[in-house]
Amino acid sequence: MDKRPIGVFDSGLGGLTVLKEINKYLPNENTIYFGDTARVPYGPRSKETIIKYTFQAINFLNTKDVKAIVIACNTATARALVEAKEKYDLPIIGVVEAGARTAVYSTKNKKVGIIGTTGTINSKAYNKAIKSMDSKIKVIGKACPIFVPLVEEGWANKEISSMAAHMYLDSLVEKGIDSLILGCTHYPILKRTIGEAVGEDIKLINPARETALDLKNILEKRNIINTSEKKGNCIYYVSDINDQFSKVAGEFLKRKITNLEKIEIHRY
Amino acid sequence: MDKRPIGVFDSGLGGLTVLKEINKYLPNENTIYFGDTARVPYGPRSKETIIKYTFQAINFLNTKDVKAIVIACNTATARALVEAKEKYDLPIIGVVEAGARTAVYSTKNKKVGIIGTTGTINSKAYNKAIKSMDSKIKVIGKACPIFVPLVEEGWANKEISSMAAHMYLDSLVEKGIDSLILGCTHYPILKRTIGEAVGEDIKLINPARETALDLKNILEKRNIINTSEKKGNCIYYVSDINDQFSKVAGEFLKRKITNLEKIEIHRY
Repeated sequence: MDKRPIGVFDSGLGGLTVLKEINKYLPNENTIYFGDTARVPYGPRSKETIIKYTFQAINFLNTKDVKAIVIACNTATARALVEAKEKYDLPIIGVVEAGARTAVYSTKNKKVGIIGTTGTINSKAYNKAIKSMDSKIKVIGKACPIFVPLVEEGWANKEISSMAAHMYLDSLVEKGIDSLILGCTHYPILKRTIGEAVGEDIKLINPARETALDLKNILEKRNIINTSEKKGNCIYYVSDINDQFSKVAGEFLKRKITNLEKIEIHRY
Repeated sequence: MDKRPIGVFDSGLGGLTVLKEINKYLPNENTIYFGDTARVPYGPRSKETIIKYTFQAINFLNTKDVKAIVIACNTATARALVEAKEKYDLPIIGVVEAGARTAVYSTKNKKVGIIGTTGTINSKAYNKAIKSMDSKIKVIGKACPIFVPLVEEGWANKEISSMAAHMYLDSLVEKGIDSLILGCTHYPILKRTIGEAVGEDIKLINPARETALDLKNILEKRNIINTSEKKGNCIYYVSDINDQFSKVAGEFLKRKITNLEKIEIHRY
């Protein structure tokens, strides 16, 4: 029985969609969320910078005595997970492997699409993960940098998002993919719009759920699960607080955020 | 005769549109450009964070012995210019006052629109500057957070930008403005699209040109202008280098960037 919290880290607020799945499948676990809102988005930044930011986030979470860390950010997972696992001793779980595995199970024609930020797509992290599981699968990536700002503007279900979805995704559909990984934690909010743009024959894969199940497995195997019957609490930390925070956070998490604190992340 | 360079600072690359005007009106001046690309965009960040970032940028530029600083970023000007002027001795010029003055000269019906990032609009910096020059002018602000990512995606002249322009600007047109300040250094790239959306009766005001003329005035008054007949050089510094840099920079500046160096801005 291990009551220590699980650390969940994202470049901003998108990781709240992952936190939500963790709270669903591991309701008794305490969680610490850190969103690096002072330096979001990570998507366009260099690998070197993303590694530095990820280490700082892990250093911070370690001051809270976490028993495991979920990097709930596709860009940070794609660019810095390997380096983080080398540097730190505790279990660190990214969102890429879980999403890749689900895609491998899902695809029948062995053509998988992956969409995400420029950083995630350029890293080819999903391609590598999928190829390592089934080398015959063809993986086609497409960076969609407008999607995050569209979600944050609250325009996810408006015609402009549908237009952006077609501009990005028509070429993927033409290439005959049968599964599409939503490789950015903001994209589940666009799920309906993306689904309408690509048509119902293409299965949309949201790595967040699978990541939560991975985490559950790992906690059980290591015997560090929290067996308390009390509902876990969550404390939220961000590196900057702005006006949009509660609006976006509410939309992602579908519940009100309390226990929010700002920290100086560059000190870690 | 003062050969020391002029420091030009922006949160990212948008300030290159201001640098371009400075190079045009002060061709013999040497310039140092710093783009805080590791922490862009400043738009959604808190005032406190923007002040900290601006001071770090000025501290860095001061290590290069600059004789004057242009804050070529509407958000940083709106949130941190007053504080920067109090803290530092050298001349510091922002982009807001110049844009506001041009709008005051331009408007005939005394209804001025201002568009920019969330940070710039919430600061009401343009409203205050315009009101201080003519209290009868009505200023109507509108934050347009999708515009910067649309420009950076290279979609400035596509239908999706036209749709976004109508979504943001139709309400401003209905309110009867006759002048519209492009209160973000990225927006001149969208000038044609914005112009078509609002119609030709509304005058678009680009603060960059006026800022360069302000700078020229100040250098002349203080007798620190560079009277050399040699064309000035420009050295570029950024806090992060990514793949998109040269693509976006080239589009903004319409010339190739050499002399580029990455710095660790949090150390300043």
